[in-house]
Amino acid sequence: MFEHEWTVRFSDTDPFGIAFYPDIVNTVHETADVFMQDIGFPLWELSQDHGIGLPIAEIDLSFSQPLRAGDVVRITLTTEVGRQSVRFDYVGECDGVKAFSGFEQRVCVPVGGDSAIELPEDLRTAMERGGDG
Amino acid sequence: MFEHEWTVRFSDTDPFGIAFYPDIVNTVHETADVFMQDIGFPLWELSQDHGIGLPIAEIDLSFSQPLRAGDVVRITLTTEVGRQSVRFDYVGECDGVKAFSGFEQRVCVPVGGDSAIELPEDLRTAMERGGDG
Amino acid sequence: MFEHEWTVRFSDTDPFGIAFYPDIVNTVHETADVFMQDIGFPLWELSQDHGIGLPIAEIDLSFSQPLRAGDVVRITLTTEVGRQSVRFDYVGECDGVKAFSGFEQRVCVPVGGDSAIELPEDLRTAMERGGDG
Amino acid sequence: MFEHEWTVRFSDTDPFGIAFYPDIVNTVHETADVFMQDIGFPLWELSQDHGIGLPIAEIDLSFSQPLRAGDVVRITLTTEVGRQSVRFDYVGECDGVKAFSGFEQRVCVPVGGDSAIELPEDLRTAMERGGDG
Repeated sequence: MFEHEWTVRFSDTDPFGIAFYPDIVNTVHETADVFMQDIGFPLWELSQDHGIGLPIAEIDLSFSQPLRAGDVVRITLTTEVGRQSVRFDYVGECDGVKAFSGFEQRVCVPVGGDSAIELPEDLRTAMERGGDG
Repeated sequence: MFEHEWTVRFSDTDPFGIAFYPDIVNTVHETADVFMQDIGFPLWELSQDHGIGLPIAEIDLSFSQPLRAGDVVRITLTTEVGRQSVRFDYVGECDGVKAFSGFEQRVCVPVGGDSAIELPEDLRTAMERGGDG
Repeated sequence: MFEHEWTVRFSDTDPFGIAFYPDIVNTVHETADVFMQDIGFPLWELSQDHGIGLPIAEIDLSFSQPLRAGDVVRITLTTEVGRQSVRFDYVGECDGVKAFSGFEQRVCVPVGGDSAIELPEDLRTAMERGGDG
Repeated sequence: MFEHEWTVRFSDTDPFGIAFYPDIVNTVHETADVFMQDIGFPLWELSQDHGIGLPIAEIDLSFSQPLRAGDVVRITLTTEVGRQSVRFDYVGECDGVKAFSGFEQRVCVPVGGDSAIELPEDLRTAMERGGDG
């Protein structure tokens, strides 16, 4: 399991003082980005060094509790690694209460191609280990 | 059915020249915003004039085709109006090909409250008419 | 003189109901993007078709009037074209009142290089004509 | 002097692999937000607890070196505290090389008012101490 901490900023909040959900989506995306760097496969090296990309096929997020500026959110990422794809599962908690949860489904595609290929073995292993559920 | 046109901008694209999915989420959110203004219930007047908000309970988007800078995307919004909630269904097409589709589930809550209430009748009617599937 | 219209959206506003200035910067950037497309040199074709980029050397914006959701802002862009650089001057007005003004200084650099080169003659002409002060 | 560290993310970069300048502006804004929290005057408490806001009158940033995904940027903030306003000066460095520098000019206004008032003494002291040049 991978953890990322996010402090909701003033600029993330709307006229009700509640965090905009697109800003939560941005933070989920950032969590994936930091995770990939953490396991040694930063997104910006995938294409150059490995000839692949991990575009998003689907995102699904549910919001159960509003977040406010200054809230410290603990985001956990666990992975469900498939043969040609991977699902990143997210839970965001603040003060022990779940604020949101959901997943990104990502597919492994070769640079310049558009049909899925198998995840490289070393990447699969790193994602399983780093996002160990 | 409501339509919104979006030209993918340079700043929406990543190092592969592909639109970032959080930018697509932003555009979906903007489509809802423009729709609510179009039917006479702009988001920024909901609380003041009607004492309610329409926060997001869930977002689910699937991406089937990459988008590039300069692509003109036709986004359609149709509504599925419930008693205390509404689902906005989205389809984004470019050159007749579906690029993404999905929905936002929004819940009607009173200002300062946190359990759902019924949608006001006039808002329900306007959403049904404006987003007529 | 080039004009771009921007309706301030709910998601551009902060807990005071005032547009965040980074969102205004985004809109200024988008105005440049739309302008370049309008004069036939979209940002996303500059590198491929012309071998150059126009990165920002400086941005300077002053804000004189707060903007609120629903405000319709008329943004004008005029150009001051130099030999190796160009300045885009911006004024944003709402209901005839200036809300912000300032400039972006952009430099012409070759792809892969880092010292300035002369602006191509056709680009210079297009920018002068399209952004005619 | 206050320091904030920013790792440029994949989503901050454009098709050339270079950080978009609006994303740098966002980060500068975030640095101010974190600074204000650090000195005990978070932006989201200014209005409620102190009856004031610190809107931006001007931003001016110069960019001298492109930034890429994965770059670790050390942003320093120093303050120049006036009677009714404050200037936040920023320098962003990566590997000891300056990438950008500039300032935000912020004005002290009462909630609901629009002409400048004096900075509260405790806020002035905190800003001078926290952003000691």
